[in-house]
Parts: sequence; C-alpha cells; structure tokens
Amino acid sequence: MERPRRQGMAKNTYMRWRLPLVCLLWEVAMIVLFGVFVRFGPEADAHWEEEKKQMNVTSDIENDFYFRYPSFQDVHVMIFVGFGFLMMFLKRYGFGAVGFNFLLAAFGIQWALLMQGWFHSFKTGKILIGVENLINADFCVGSVCVAFGAILGKTSPIQLLVMTLFQVTLFAVNEYILLNLLHVKDAGGSMTIHTFGAYFGLTVTRILYRPNLDQSKDKQGSVYHSDLFAMIGTLYLWMYWPSFNSAISEHGDAQHRAAINTYCSLAACVLTTMAFSSMLQKKGKLDMVHIQNATLAGGVAVGTSAEMMLTPYGSLIVGFICGIVSTVGYVYLTPVLESRLHIQDTCGIHNLHGMPGLIGGIVGAITAAAATEDVYGKEGFIKAFDFTGSYKTRTPSVQGGFQAAGIVVSLAMAFAGGALVGGILKLPIWGDPADETCFEDDIYWEV
Amino acid sequence: MERPRRQGMAKNTYMRWRLPLVCLLWEVAMIVLFGVFVRFGPEADAHWEEEKKQMNVTSDIENDFYFRYPSFQDVHVMIFVGFGFLMMFLKRYGFGAVGFNFLLAAFGIQWALLMQGWFHSFKTGKILIGVENLINADFCVGSVCVAFGAILGKTSPIQLLVMTLFQVTLFAVNEYILLNLLHVKDAGGSMTIHTFGAYFGLTVTRILYRPNLDQSKDKQGSVYHSDLFAMIGTLYLWMYWPSFNSAISEHGDAQHRAAINTYCSLAACVLTTMAFSSMLQKKGKLDMVHIQNATLAGGVAVGTSAEMMLTPYGSLIVGFICGIVSTVGYVYLTPVLESRLHIQDTCGIHNLHGMPGLIGGIVGAITAAAATEDVYGKEGFIKAFDFTGSYKTRTPSVQGGFQAAGIVVSLAMAFAGGALVGGILKLPIWGDPADETCFEDDIYWEV
Amino acid sequence: MERPRRQGMAKNTYMRWRLPLVCLLWEVAMIVLFGVFVRFGPEADAHWEEEKKQMNVTSDIENDFYFRYPSFQDVHVMIFVGFGFLMMFLKRYGFGAVGFNFLLAAFGIQWALLMQGWFHSFKTGKILIGVENLINADFCVGSVCVAFGAILGKTSPIQLLVMTLFQVTLFAVNEYILLNLLHVKDAGGSMTIHTFGAYFGLTVTRILYRPNLDQSKDKQGSVYHSDLFAMIGTLYLWMYWPSFNSAISEHGDAQHRAAINTYCSLAACVLTTMAFSSMLQKKGKLDMVHIQNATLAGGVAVGTSAEMMLTPYGSLIVGFICGIVSTVGYVYLTPVLESRLHIQDTCGIHNLHGMPGLIGGIVGAITAAAATEDVYGKEGFIKAFDFTGSYKTRTPSVQGGFQAAGIVVSLAMAFAGGALVGGILKLPIWGDPADETCFEDDIYWEV
Repeated sequence: MERPRRQGMAKNTYMRWRLPLVCLLWEVAMIVLFGVFVRFGPEADAHWEEEKKQMNVTSDIENDFYFRYPSFQDVHVMIFVGFGFLMMFLKRYGFGAVGFNFLLAAFGIQWALLMQGWFHSFKTGKILIGVENLINADFCVGSVCVAFGAILGKTSPIQLLVMTLFQVTLFAVNEYILLNLLHVKDAGGSMTIHTFGAYFGLTVTRILYRPNLDQSKDKQGSVYHSDLFAMIGTLYLWMYWPSFNSAISEHGDAQHRAAINTYCSLAACVLTTMAFSSMLQKKGKLDMVHIQNATLAGGVAVGTSAEMMLTPYGSLIVGFICGIVSTVGYVYLTPVLESRLHIQDTCGIHNLHGMPGLIGGIVGAITAAAATEDVYGKEGFIKAFDFTGSYKTRTPSVQGGFQAAGIVVSLAMAFAGGALVGGILKLPIWGDPADETCFEDDIYWEV
Repeated sequence: MERPRRQGMAKNTYMRWRLPLVCLLWEVAMIVLFGVFVRFGPEADAHWEEEKKQMNVTSDIENDFYFRYPSFQDVHVMIFVGFGFLMMFLKRYGFGAVGFNFLLAAFGIQWALLMQGWFHSFKTGKILIGVENLINADFCVGSVCVAFGAILGKTSPIQLLVMTLFQVTLFAVNEYILLNLLHVKDAGGSMTIHTFGAYFGLTVTRILYRPNLDQSKDKQGSVYHSDLFAMIGTLYLWMYWPSFNSAISEHGDAQHRAAINTYCSLAACVLTTMAFSSMLQKKGKLDMVHIQNATLAGGVAVGTSAEMMLTPYGSLIVGFICGIVSTVGYVYLTPVLESRLHIQDTCGIHNLHGMPGLIGGIVGAITAAAATEDVYGKEGFIKAFDFTGSYKTRTPSVQGGFQAAGIVVSLAMAFAGGALVGGILKLPIWGDPADETCFEDDIYWEV
Repeated sequence: MERPRRQGMAKNTYMRWRLPLVCLLWEVAMIVLFGVFVRFGPEADAHWEEEKKQMNVTSDIENDFYFRYPSFQDVHVMIFVGFGFLMMFLKRYGFGAVGFNFLLAAFGIQWALLMQGWFHSFKTGKILIGVENLINADFCVGSVCVAFGAILGKTSPIQLLVMTLFQVTLFAVNEYILLNLLHVKDAGGSMTIHTFGAYFGLTVTRILYRPNLDQSKDKQGSVYHSDLFAMIGTLYLWMYWPSFNSAISEHGDAQHRAAINTYCSLAACVLTTMAFSSMLQKKGKLDMVHIQNATLAGGVAVGTSAEMMLTPYGSLIVGFICGIVSTVGYVYLTPVLESRLHIQDTCGIHNLHGMPGLIGGIVGAITAAAATEDVYGKEGFIKAFDFTGSYKTRTPSVQGGFQAAGIVVSLAMAFAGGALVGGILKLPIWGDPADETCFEDDIYWEV
C-alpha cells in the first residue's frame, strides 16, 4: 500500500508529540474541572431514595432516566455512527471520518457537560448531571460534527480538537442567549445545532481556503463500497432523528408529538430528494450524494417546530420543501460557493444543515406565532411555550419574533465565531496536510 | 468503472421525468390527504394535559409513547437497515437494495398511515395517530419489503412505488378482515405481514417471469464484501425481532412474553440453520445465504403466537423446525420453483417468509386452540384473546378455527392481489431493466 | 476465488457430519431441558393481571420489561453486532468472525438461561424467566465472546461450541460464588465477564499454542475495508456500554448513575488511547488496532463500580488510565506474551478485557471500601450494597475485601477452567484448521 508521494513543502504533519500532548493535557484539565464541579444530579445520586420521599414520587419509573434514556442512546448512535459513517463516503478517508469524529466527539461531550452545566445545571457551586445533560452534551457535539463536515479531509486532528474546544464554548453561549435570554424554543436544535454549526463550519472552511485543492481532486470522490458505508450513517441518522428532535422535549405529549412530526417530515423528504436527484441529472439517474444527505434535511428543518402543533401534514410540507432545497443546493449551489465564494464544503453541509436549519428556524417562528389556546388547549398552550413567570404575558406573535431573533443571533455567533476560530486554525502549528495530501488517511493513520 | 454494455432493445430505463413525476405527484397527494384526515391522537396532542385529568392518568409515564417508543425504533431499524442491508448481498446492487428499499418504505409508511388509519383509527372524520400507528405503518411496509425481495434487481423504482401503493392498500384490507372481522390475533404478523407479503411477492415475480434472466447470471451472486454488508441486515433483523413481535402487544405481560418467546425461537433457529447448511453441502461448508436468511425464520414463525402462552420450550421447537425448513427450502425448493414454476425469487423469500409465515399461522391457530383458563388465568385468558363484547362466548377451539381462516384469507388476498399488481407492473411503461442488465446498479444510479 | 492450497497433513476440517450432529443434538437437549425447567416469570406470564393485584401494582408500566428492555436490546446488539463486527478486522475471516460469534452466542444464551436459572431463578422446581434473565444470558455469553477473541481464526466451529458449553457452565458457577456466596457487587461484570472471560480465553489459547502459526502470518493482518467493518463493532460496543453496565442495576438512581459513570469513563479513554497510539509509533500515526480496542477499556474498567458513587471525575480517571494501559499493552505486551509465554492472542483480549477487567475489580473494591453513609445517604447505602438480612452488619471495608476476593476467585476459575477446556479442545477430533490455513474463511465457508 506504499505509494511515493511528494509532501507539501512547508507542511509538517508529524503528530507524535503534538497530538498526545493536547489529548493528555486537555483530558487532565477535564478531570480537574469535573472534580471541582461535576456531581450526580438528584435522580442519579444514591440519595434518590430520600429525594423520592421529598418529591412525593412513588415509583422508580418516574426517574427521568426512563423518560429519556432510550432517546439518549439513539442520539448517541447518531453522533458516533451517524455522523462518523456518513462522512465515510470519501474513497480514502474512512479512518479519518470515523476516527476523528470519534476523537472530537469524545472530547466535546466532556467539555460540553461543563460549559452547558455552568449555564444550565449549576446549583450551589456544582454542576448536577443526569441523562438530560448527556443528551445535551451529545447535541452540542452534533454541531461540531456538522462543522467537521465542511473541513473533512483538510485538517489535522489537532485542528479538530481546537475547533471543538472553541465551538462547544460558543455553542453554549449561543444556546444560553437563545433559551434563557430570548426564551426561545428549539428542542431539536434547528438554530442552535444546525444553523449555528453549519455557518460556523462554512466560515471556518472559507478562512482555511485552499486555492490549490484540485491537487487532491482524485481523492475527493467516492467509490462503490465507501458509498455503502456512508449509507449506514445516513440511515441511522434518518431512523433516529425522531428521537433526536424529541429527546429533551417535555415529558408526555411533547415528546410523542415531536417524534411523529419528525417521522412525517423525513418520509416526505425522501420522495422529493429522489425526484430532484433524478430530474437534475441529464441521464435521469439517482445520485448517492443526494440520497445520503438531502433525505435528512427534513429532520433538520423540523428541529424547532417538531414539539409544537406543527401537525403531520405541516411536517410533510416542510419535508417536501427541504428535500428539494437540499438537492438543488448540492447540484447548483455547492459548485458556486466554491468557485465564487471560495467556500470548500466537503460534505455539502450548507445543503444538509445550513439552509434546512434556517428553514427550520423560520418554520419554528411561524408555528409559534400561529399558536392559539384553541389548538393547544389552555394548559397545553402555557406548557408548550413555558409562558410562566416573567413570560406569563408573552403572546404567540411576540414569541414568533423572538424565535426569529434566535436565528439572527445564531447566524451572528456562527460568523463571528467561525472567523475567530478559522483564524486560529490558520496558524501554521497544527500540522494540517498539504493540498496534495488532503482526503488521504495515509497522513495521520497507519494504513 | 465504465463498461460497454448492450441495452435491451425495447427497454427504456430512462427515469428522468417519470420517476420525479410519480414521486412529486404522490407526495402532493399525501400532503392533501394528511391535511384532510390526519391529526394527532390524544396522547400526542397538546390537549394531553386535559386528557390526563379526564382519563384519571396521574403520570406522563403512562403515555403510550413510553410503552412503545423503544420497540418502534427497533422496528424502524429493521425496516430500513434490516431489509435494506439484507438485500445488499448482490455484488453490484447495493445502491438499489438499500436505496430503493428506502424509497418505497418512505412512501409506504405515509400511505399506510392513511390506509390503516381509515380502518382502525378513524374517529369523527379524522385519523388520530400516535406511536402505535407509526409501528403499524412500519409493519405494513415490512410486507412490501418482503415482496421486494422476490423481485430485487429486476424492477425499476417506479414499479416498486406502484407495487407499494397497491400492496399497502391490500395489506390494510387483509388486516382489517383478519383483525376486525375474523377477530384474529397476529401481533407479529406471521399472516398479515409475512404470509401475505411473501405470496404476494412470489405471485408478482411469477407474472414478471423473465425466461432469459440467465443473461445476467454473473451478477446474481455475491462477493465477499457484499455478504458482510448483508450480515448487518441479518443481525439487526435477528436482534430486534423480539421488539417486532412484541411492539403492538398489550401493555405488560403480553409485550414481555412476546419478546421472550421470540428470543428463544430465534436462538434455536440459528443452530438448526447451521446444522443443515453444513449437512446439505457436499464439502460440509457453511453457506452465507443460509446464515443470512434461514436464521431469521424463527422470528417469522412465532409472529402470531409469541404473545400467547407458547412457552419458551414451545418457541425453541418452532425455531428448531423453521431453521430446517428454511435451509432445506434454499437448497432444494428455490431451484425447483424457478425451473418448474417459473418463480424467480431473488432473495428466496419463500424460504424466509413464505413457509415460516404459514408455519407461524398454523402454530398460532394451534396455540390459540389449546388455550385454557388454567394456563392464562381467568382475567389473562380474556385479555389475551380479547374475548369481550360480541366475542365474549368464543371458545379457544373456535378461535383456533378463525386463526386458520386468517391464513387462508391472507393467501387468497396475496395470490389475487399479486396477480393484479403483477399484471399492472408488466405494462411496458415503467422502465424496467432488460434481462442482461438486471442486478446492476448502473442502470438507475450514477456509479 | 479458487486458490490452490496445501492442507495440513493430519488435519481433517471436514464438518459435514460433526457440526450438524453437535448442533442438532445439543438443540434437542435444550428443548428437553427447557420443557422440564423453564417457564415464564410472573411479569411475563398471563397471570400477571392477578399478580398485579396481589403485588398492589397499579400500572403496567411497573412491569420490569419497561425498566430493562431498552437496555436489553442495547446489550443484545453489543453481543451480536459489537463482538461480531469488532472481530471482522482480519482480512479473510469476516464470515468466521461474525458467523461463528452468531453460532456460539445463539447456543450460549440458551444454555446460560438454564445454568444461571438453576442458580438464581429456581423456584418450586422451575426456572422462571423474564427480561433480566435474557440480559444475564447475554452477559454470560459476552464472556465467551471475549474468550473467542483470543482464539479467533485458529479453531473450528465445533471447538467453539464445546468451549461455550463449558465456559457458560463455569461462568455460572463463578457468578454464583461471587454474587451469592461472597455477596459481591459486579453489575457490569468487570470480574465475572471480563476478567474471567479474558484469562479463561488466554489459558485456552496458551494450551492450543501453535509454534508454526507464522505460516499464516500473511492473513493475520487487516485490510482497509475490514478495518472499517471492525469500527462498526467498536462503535456499537462503545456507544451501548452505558446500557451494558446499567442493565441489571437496581431500578432508579443506580441504573441512572451506572450509565453516567460509564459514559464518562469511555469518553476519557478515547483521548488517552489516541494520545498513546500516536506517541508509541515512530511516525506518530494512529493505529486502528488501538482505536478499535483500547477505546473500550474504559467501559470494562468501570463494570464493577459504575453503579456505585464512583462520581463522574472518578470515572474520567479510570478511563484515562485504562486507555493508556490498554494501548501500551497492544504495543509492548502482546508481542511479549506470544514470544515468551506462547500466548497467541488474536484480538489482544488481554489488553481490552484482561488488564482493564482486573483494574475494574480493584476500582470496585476500593470504591466499595470507601463508601460512607454520608455519600450514599442512609437508605441509599443499604440499598447500594444490599446490606440487609445476613449482610446487615457488613461494613464497607469488609465489602471491599470481599470484592477483592472476587477478583482472585474469578482468576482462579479462569485459569483452572481454561486449562481443562484447553485440554479438551486439544483432542484431535474437533476439526481445527492447519497452521497454514488459520485466519481463512475458506476452510469452513463457501466463499
């Protein structure tokens, strides 16, 4: 398997001391911070027996674990197998796709538990964690996996870890602004995960623009088997997306509804993706790139509204539109982004997460603005939007406005953060590959 | 990867306008019908808070979502990854196997939600859906996936969509006759899913008989890697089958029991499959075709009886027999079906779903007929067979008779429906491949 | 695919009558024994309706099925896909890896239901089974899968079945000694599954030592695609390990806590594995062997303590250490074990299960010894260690001592049992392959 290859002149991709140093130091930092801050939440602590009595809980089945653990595991599979295998389509980057995704996600979930914990689960000096925190940490890392798709094959593992560190931090800040300050709903993360993740990643890849990337053009395609591996990723993302969008919704009807809406949206999305994939090729043949990616846009686009009363046919409409938008994006927009805007988007995340994420934010804003007590029921209305406390008097149309503001904030954070992080990643110290050795496992892996 | 290839004379496999037209029109029809008919059921609707009070439900954990969602996700994986990857064994039809399965299932679940909804969940002019409907829609599509196995590689995606449209319709009618008119038990679908799906598919492939199919004989086999991909499908079907057979059983003991019985039957089936696979080959070597398929027959064959008091050893016996029947079928029956009856059964669904489905129906009839109040307990007996209302006086032996009638009805529907649909698919307008280009992704996919 | 090959002189690998005979006879034995002994437990029996009243259970959701079924399915996936695919890394042994694992596990779970049933669920002459028994049977087979890793590619399917028969028996005895006689905690099986399984397998492979195994050296490596398949196994093991370690813990906080601890340990383990994988190679490149295996050591090593108050940072520390120990083991220890001790460990189970299992036992002993009423709460303390009845007066430090004794007993059982079984497997009647045809599917499979 040895092939002679000319290394890029100025590129030093030797990882032997840099990568271990970063991994070990950061992991030690995690241990110290966890030691200082992280403890079990009441439902995972051995004091639960006493807690139960105080909270008047009669059965262990009321423990949040049983409401959310199955969804958590589905989300977990999406992050590690879903994203990892989806990115395996490149002919010689399978190890990097699944391996680096594994690395950044394993680090990211730890850092996310801390960052999100400080913002959301901080009580008397400690971060108290339970299964919902694990889901949220996976969600946060999901946005990093999205961004990874844009720079796949063009970065070193150290760059990915640096990006994860910063992106998780910014994610937590953005999430705090949206959920706590703007009081916005976004259970499936159309804004916080997909819009933010995608435009963050696109900004980073813009800054890391490689004018001579065509030197590794022969490795940018897929081969038959790599496409089949990628379909494993696609299907697990597609099948488990109902769990993703419902995982942290309120117990009961909200989780139930979010799963149904997502199921419907995704089903519709497959049909329009197939339709446009065939329609936009001269020979009328289907393109695996579209099937692997655009079929998922329907899940992204109901991320905000799935737990609302979007209704099954509303979900079908959203899925219908997003299959088209996403497929058209792959055919027409991605080449233009590269040639005109110098955005080299390896996986086409703009089509799968960027535009559908924006659509998701907008659909969420509209659905919220259209909410009525009639549709939700008096109690259901208050519960769905959490119109209690200082938000008691907020009206649906105001909520719609805030939802829209959430999109703008997420975009702003993505562009600013992506520019900052892109700049950092451009420093010539992280061991990124030369143009002619991009998309090639050989650089960082024993093959 | 370009190979010169002589296209069949009269065959026009150009999909560019036909496939998009069908996908888009049908999806629009789905949206309209969903808009008119489909709404959230009470447990997924935002009025749940009020519902809870009326139904005197004290905890959100009583929402059907928590009883069935984990099983739903397992079933979902079986339909999309299980069937999709199982059919990937052909050396050059991986895209078609997983991609067309994806397409037909995504359309089928929408149409099934409507068809089954009209029959089973229609209240005051609306179809009210919840997680159980999603499972049933997946089940219904499961029967289409079964039938797809018979015609795999020999049909265009449009033919598959047409078949799905009709088969889902007929499935819903058959299911209505069995469950509502005959008051038959069939939670895991030995009759409604497997027997119906298999003989429907076999009839279709009989009518689509291709005398010169040996022109693509070189592509009908597997290669090493395609067999490994297929094992992913096999294992997910095998592992999750306990969820399949228990997914829509009554809450509590019935779900629990169905999972245990299926687990036992499948375990026994693996051993007899291995035994006969080795025994029936001169060299005594194991054949991956048997391992991939016959090991699953035990799940099919307890589909009716798993929720009954079949008992663990009863399940072992069923699995024991079916591993043998199915493996013997692959070795001796499949070649005969092709040469004598002109039934070209690509995946051997007759061995995996046909015969085991029939056995499952029979085992179900016997198990029902043998039921006693002693074995089930007084209340359990009534609950297990729903001997309430107008069925209050039905005896086990009468129930056994009706169960047997269910097999006959399913077969009749399969043959009649299959003949009808086969005839429709024979029309020369659907873009099916020429004999020499069957089992080849190149026709419908950018490779 | 036909290649001329010289068969080992004295080796007769013809399976045609031997394998079917063993499979069929043993399966008949299972049926008879299940018929005599195995019945549904109260929560899976149709008498559940009456049981509910007696036990004052008001809702079906209190059925153990709903507490444990999602975890059961995750464990099931780990055994069949996790182990099966992890062992697929060999270039020409994919069928054997996944197929033989399938065979031995399918037999093993039946025999384990009986063996464990006699020890733990035997009431009035019957073994009463429920979902927890299914999990325990899978666990027991997990230890056989571990041992299989040491002899992968060098044994016939009959040898594997014979080993399974004996190992399951010994597992059940060892488990009984630990859990019932020593009253030791080991929910995730650091001792019972991993330590026992690993050292049992290593002893067996030592006795089956093949001095001329280098004759099949060219087949001992992996190829690009086989490594990608193996990553499927790795990831499913990694993702579902929190379910593994929590599957049979007490309802409520214990399950919740076990999942969190395992999640943390595994995350940390990935980073130190990556660090040392890069650091220990001259070129600083990552080695897929380490990523596939050592990343999982963190799950093994919290198997005993995950349900205790190990705390998240404690888990990180354990994962941190085990990633290092395991990776170092692959680089330095495995070659030495082979050259000096004649232990040919195909998958390096000593690094993934042996040492981390021992660490897990030790961590469990320390965590138990360090337990206080302050940390656990008065009731939680008693519940966590089941200090009731005759164990009412046991103190944490005594418990720690018994935990440590559990390690010693497991090791002793493993060495003695492995020696016995290795001796049996050495008999020249089981059809094992010649040295030059090891690691080759061709011997036992139609390729």
